[in-house]
Amino acid sequence: MAMSTMIHNHLPAIPHTGVNRNKLVARAHQEAPVVDHPINGTKASKRAARLAESLSNLLHLHVEPPQRREVMKHYSSWDSFGDDEKHSTPTMSPKQMISDKWREIHGCTDWDSLLDPLHPCLRREILKYGEFAQATYDAFDFDPFSEYCGSCRFNSNKIFEKLGLDGKHGYKVCKYIYAMSHIDMPQWLNRTVHLGDTWSRDSNWMGFVAISDEEETRRIGRRDIVVAWRGTVAPSEWYEDFQRKLEPIGPGDDAKVEHGFHSIYTSKSEHTRYSKSSASEQVMKEVTRLVKLYKEKGEEVSLTITGHSLGGALALLNAYEAATTIPGLPISVISFGAPRVGNIAFRDQLHQMGVKTLRVVVKQDLVPKMPGVVFNEGLQKFDEITGTLDWVYTHVGAELRLDVRSSPYLKHGFNLLGFHSQETYLHLVDGFVCQSSSFREDARRDVALVNKACDMLVDELRIPHCWYQMENKGLVRNAHGRWVKPKREAEDVPVPVGSQPNFHALDKIVESRRLQPVYV
Amino acid sequence: MAMSTMIHNHLPAIPHTGVNRNKLVARAHQEAPVVDHPINGTKASKRAARLAESLSNLLHLHVEPPQRREVMKHYSSWDSFGDDEKHSTPTMSPKQMISDKWREIHGCTDWDSLLDPLHPCLRREILKYGEFAQATYDAFDFDPFSEYCGSCRFNSNKIFEKLGLDGKHGYKVCKYIYAMSHIDMPQWLNRTVHLGDTWSRDSNWMGFVAISDEEETRRIGRRDIVVAWRGTVAPSEWYEDFQRKLEPIGPGDDAKVEHGFHSIYTSKSEHTRYSKSSASEQVMKEVTRLVKLYKEKGEEVSLTITGHSLGGALALLNAYEAATTIPGLPISVISFGAPRVGNIAFRDQLHQMGVKTLRVVVKQDLVPKMPGVVFNEGLQKFDEITGTLDWVYTHVGAELRLDVRSSPYLKHGFNLLGFHSQETYLHLVDGFVCQSSSFREDARRDVALVNKACDMLVDELRIPHCWYQMENKGLVRNAHGRWVKPKREAEDVPVPVGSQPNFHALDKIVESRRLQPVYV
Repeated sequence: MAMSTMIHNHLPAIPHTGVNRNKLVARAHQEAPVVDHPINGTKASKRAARLAESLSNLLHLHVEPPQRREVMKHYSSWDSFGDDEKHSTPTMSPKQMISDKWREIHGCTDWDSLLDPLHPCLRREILKYGEFAQATYDAFDFDPFSEYCGSCRFNSNKIFEKLGLDGKHGYKVCKYIYAMSHIDMPQWLNRTVHLGDTWSRDSNWMGFVAISDEEETRRIGRRDIVVAWRGTVAPSEWYEDFQRKLEPIGPGDDAKVEHGFHSIYTSKSEHTRYSKSSASEQVMKEVTRLVKLYKEKGEEVSLTITGHSLGGALALLNAYEAATTIPGLPISVISFGAPRVGNIAFRDQLHQMGVKTLRVVVKQDLVPKMPGVVFNEGLQKFDEITGTLDWVYTHVGAELRLDVRSSPYLKHGFNLLGFHSQETYLHLVDGFVCQSSSFREDARRDVALVNKACDMLVDELRIPHCWYQMENKGLVRNAHGRWVKPKREAEDVPVPVGSQPNFHALDKIVESRRLQPVYV
Repeated sequence: MAMSTMIHNHLPAIPHTGVNRNKLVARAHQEAPVVDHPINGTKASKRAARLAESLSNLLHLHVEPPQRREVMKHYSSWDSFGDDEKHSTPTMSPKQMISDKWREIHGCTDWDSLLDPLHPCLRREILKYGEFAQATYDAFDFDPFSEYCGSCRFNSNKIFEKLGLDGKHGYKVCKYIYAMSHIDMPQWLNRTVHLGDTWSRDSNWMGFVAISDEEETRRIGRRDIVVAWRGTVAPSEWYEDFQRKLEPIGPGDDAKVEHGFHSIYTSKSEHTRYSKSSASEQVMKEVTRLVKLYKEKGEEVSLTITGHSLGGALALLNAYEAATTIPGLPISVISFGAPRVGNIAFRDQLHQMGVKTLRVVVKQDLVPKMPGVVFNEGLQKFDEITGTLDWVYTHVGAELRLDVRSSPYLKHGFNLLGFHSQETYLHLVDGFVCQSSSFREDARRDVALVNKACDMLVDELRIPHCWYQMENKGLVRNAHGRWVKPKREAEDVPVPVGSQPNFHALDKIVESRRLQPVYV
């Protein structure tokens, strides 16, 4: 309590800068008028109309007329949004020195009285960590026809540069983390017996460990180690999450966590190239090394673990292990749209060890209701299956609750994918002032990012949906005019943990097995 | 008859180079084994499974395991297809001199005995014209959020270069054709009163007129004028096609054509910038000019009109008008997947005027069955509605019939879009030997092209589906890190018919009205 008051003192009060939300929402909800179908009348003509409709799908891409809405005067009528002035501003609020209050911002008082209203310095830190979580998606190779499917598209030295994050946040990636994927990888992989040698059909890139540079370290008052966990991609990873089995974690048998998450975090196999050690072992080895390195230099060190969706669940398991292994280290978890992970005892142990957790949750997002949506609310005859109450999954820590309807830039209609998207989360964090106010007028984060992989922005903004895509899905025309997949640059080919990069040897493997329609 | 024999004499017989199709098809039809669902058993767990399934959609892009198939040994096991040798060959058979037999190839004998087996020289010409038809899709601006939606993305001087067709076919574009679009353009266009001044909400780019260069003219034995018509894009254009009303065309009242097609071909309005003259007037003016120009030079001149889907229908109307207007000009139509256009009298008049029509038709494609599928086969009580028989739509000319199942590269499962795709047509033409043989072994056209805008290639080829796409849908990051749509290069901004390009003035219009999130 005393602590909380103290924070409030040296963190100045935040003005409520939001404008009247209701008015905007009311405008935004005006729907497109129903257009009369050009063909109507007889039964036969109705059949023709139906046929025409289904045939319109034949006709390559078709132009979908966006819904008609009123201009949202305060924010984003196209004319004002197209304004050069608006487009010339940086996409982040300026960095502020937080070296004297980093412990509070890092959660040492459970963010008490920093969340509503949201303190600007905390907002900026949440966005920083959230963009690290987003980076694990942006850099991931999703292409099922790529021989590197499931890896990171860039090596650890240039990932931030490639994603435009170099210089922005002042961190450097030290280590990549891999985990057993449990993916049913494309079947053709089985045809070539040794394809596993080149990349792995057993492992997926799951994130990275990064460290703050000198300048950022000065600004934030300590050397900050970040672990960013990637969320789920393949359905099989997700099914694994639904084994409906809590299993013990830690020294006692009280704390229990969901089996699927725990399995991804701890699985390993001698028969793989990237998962001879588990994700848990990889990450803890690197974190322990970094803590030791900087503590020996006399620096203050913190650990911040972040992740979206499944990544948020893994972050919590990671935090539990780190707190057990490295007592006294300030550890925080900033998770976005994460499902519940364990039981009440798990939560209590995390509390006791001093792990601070800030769960950023969009009210309309379904994933944070999981597995609880199945096992807490959804199941009528819950006891018949489980018998005891310590099977109940529970959430951990403080919550920053966001509402899609607070943003005048977003469509508010049901959108399973859009509500869960990490870019939606980051947009809403950027605009959040307090629970009773609406979107921040001076929010600066680029709104276009929201539509990267979904269709959430109102049409007036004229940002295409799902626009984050490679030119021709990576195919290029060779000298003969044929469309081929170029070889990945040698330095971006994943290299097994522990081995030295040997680009020449890898090239030879690729070449001799003709894994790709390679043309040089 | 005598003519047909003569052709056979100086066009040598074609060896049947196809391999046994049945064997390949049998292999290709082996299906992926059914994978057991990880969750099964109780009712509750089934609900969980369903939830998991629907939630897997939440998880960004997901990896779809391709179907398992046997390697297709003769063609495209990945290893042999990845072979450098195969990837180093040109994507077209070498050009042959056809100056002494161009009239037969152009259809003067209705391609009698040239189609089954397909004569290699004719195949090459069909592919040339088919690629012009495809170019009208590849260059079209489909982006509903673009202020140039419905225009050609490139100006006429560089369209072929941008599409990799410069030098390949030896033609030069002389003129773009626009038509009234009848499109319900995105509603936001209405907000800015004068947006119509910059680009047009009334008109769509519908294709081009091109002319053979000196070298190609020597090879093909005459100066060839090509008109390529774009197919349908917007559903509203297609609905228009279904007004189920034949209307008279030409001097008598006997010949009748479908109202929708005719309307697109002939509509104009003083209130538009691009359709003050109709597509008909634009194209006939240019063709007449070119015919006059080269006839006065003493050259032989031909007119070849091509188009896919709706474009094929417009090609036929165009041919009818050209034959009426310019008697004695050799006129051919090469259409791909075109619907029926008119009645029997229309067909007969085309015959009488000497218009030659080669309809390339994929057996599985639905569009060539239209509007017939509604009015000939589909409707039981046909007479009740129409009363007379001259309402019956009918096809015109010779037919080259292709079968999706002839190609071992293609998936054979039902695929409305894939069966109709022009790239599928071109692939099948390239592989066609004769009706009783299977895919040509020495077909050279790049197979990857088939998947440009659909998902028709077997997974072993590892070509992504719908891969023809712009990087980030045209968004680029400006100096501040914001994602914005760059202005189109001034020379690629559409310029109204008859006016001189005035890039500076156009720039000013764009600038002052802030139509785009422009950042320079």
